[in-house]
Amino acid sequence: MRALSAAGHRVLGFDADPETRATARSAAARVPAAQRWQITATIRDAAADAELVVLAVPLPALDDVLDALTACGYHGLITDVTSVKGPVREAVAARLRRAANPLAGFVGGHPMTGKSVSGFASGDPALFTGCAWVLCLDEATGLDDWLTVAGLITALGARVVPATSAEHDRAVAVISHVPHLLALALAATAASDPLALTLAAGSFRDGTRVAGSRPELVAAMCGGNAAAVLTALGDVQERLDEAAKALEGRDPLRAIRDWAKDGHAARQAWPPAPGRPEQVPVRVETLLRLGRAGGWITEVAADRRTVTAFLPVEGE
Amino acid sequence: MRALSAAGHRVLGFDADPETRATARSAAARVPAAQRWQITATIRDAAADAELVVLAVPLPALDDVLDALTACGYHGLITDVTSVKGPVREAVAARLRRAANPLAGFVGGHPMTGKSVSGFASGDPALFTGCAWVLCLDEATGLDDWLTVAGLITALGARVVPATSAEHDRAVAVISHVPHLLALALAATAASDPLALTLAAGSFRDGTRVAGSRPELVAAMCGGNAAAVLTALGDVQERLDEAAKALEGRDPLRAIRDWAKDGHAARQAWPPAPGRPEQVPVRVETLLRLGRAGGWITEVAADRRTVTAFLPVEGE
Repeated sequence: MRALSAAGHRVLGFDADPETRATARSAAARVPAAQRWQITATIRDAAADAELVVLAVPLPALDDVLDALTACGYHGLITDVTSVKGPVREAVAARLRRAANPLAGFVGGHPMTGKSVSGFASGDPALFTGCAWVLCLDEATGLDDWLTVAGLITALGARVVPATSAEHDRAVAVISHVPHLLALALAATAASDPLALTLAAGSFRDGTRVAGSRPELVAAMCGGNAAAVLTALGDVQERLDEAAKALEGRDPLRAIRDWAKDGHAARQAWPPAPGRPEQVPVRVETLLRLGRAGGWITEVAADRRTVTAFLPVEGE
Repeated sequence: MRALSAAGHRVLGFDADPETRATARSAAARVPAAQRWQITATIRDAAADAELVVLAVPLPALDDVLDALTACGYHGLITDVTSVKGPVREAVAARLRRAANPLAGFVGGHPMTGKSVSGFASGDPALFTGCAWVLCLDEATGLDDWLTVAGLITALGARVVPATSAEHDRAVAVISHVPHLLALALAATAASDPLALTLAAGSFRDGTRVAGSRPELVAAMCGGNAAAVLTALGDVQERLDEAAKALEGRDPLRAIRDWAKDGHAARQAWPPAPGRPEQVPVRVETLLRLGRAGGWITEVAADRRTVTAFLPVEGE
């Protein structure tokens, strides 16, 4: 809401919690009048004249909110910012099949940014500047709807990454969900040794930081993406098995040094730097290939026939 | 050198690299005259009148330096700051048996602090303030030698943690060596998916930070501590197997939430806060019990009969 309002859009918002609505109303009073969002008393009031509805609710609340939207006859475009995309796509598809007034269009989204603090008061209109924002291009996604949302989001300064829901869920399993499991396993292992906890410094602090996330949140992320998390966890465990073999061998120093090279090179090359901007034709396969190669788009052309795209270049 | 000089000790230093010696000499010229260290041209010159020699060399260089020290007839106390203590203890013991002039005393040490940048120019006299500094109390360690080094180091503002070499090596396997292996395995797994690398944000950044350490350093740490690292890695892998089972089960959300509780609680309670200071009698078993309970000492009494000790108290 803060980012869209600051970008000059007319924004109406609703939250199930009256206290959050009150906080959001007072916060609006503190921004320039032209950038002020409005808080409505019902979902119906918020959606009545909307061209786009952004669902910013956790996965377990999604079904109810989609039902409320169809119940009030909303026919416009919908996007969301939930961290797992397969279950969201399925929830929307189930409603499209069932609803007397099918939703006009749905584009699943996931901005790869956030803060360690929650609540409306922690919002920041600049939160999305430069962040990667996945927009799902699934078989059921209308390319025109996708371009509409992509245009809106690139205009906020985010880098839009095209991917299927399945590709997104596999990628976040590796870079977000499994890291939580590793952090929790490490913290739990250290817990049995008070001496270790007293000696722990930087590598333990960073390696376990996300173990501070609430177990409910970790469960929602990993449990909602179980198949992809299992695959990614299996890959990591395989590499750890190789490390164990290296340590058991006759020359552990040399074996661990060789084993460490891939991971070290990957980390040194991260984050990927952008190559030169390219004008890329708007075709589903071309966009998905761009996303698979680690690319992103920063602009949708006015005629919607091309997008401005970047591919990553090798780091050092 | 910087910390000991700043604390008013007379410090002489030697480094095998002439460039490092030059850097250390010019750096000395920039501190107040009373706090100036001297750089010598040989190990012999540095050790000639020393009461204590601090070995700050990597494990592979240790044998040569110990040989040079015995060759020049050094009879004083020695301590070191190497990150694995078992192999250091064995190297010293081998020389004690062999040398015509046995070393008077050895106390293995490991300050749990550091910087991501190396070299004399990166030194900081305040680096040890508040850090945990393990001093090994093995069977061969003279308690009087241990108290001498402990007194020196607590006066630098560090928290001295008594532990056997084996206890130290087991603890750092969990809190330092295994975190490096987890970070490397995670980074290597993500490397095969450019989409994942583009989406990666905070949890990947922190979870893989130490994968940026040079493979040679990781190999020296893990390879020099292979048995303890294997045990700790096995414990972490067992917990990851449990997470996999939780994900495969009928209710992955509830199972992961329950699985996550131990690690979450451990991370929330870390770092441990100090309890009230206590005067503890100087006895080997008492000191080792203190270390095993996660405690540390901040002062050695002038009569050397007690130390000021702290035990950790439960976090939130």
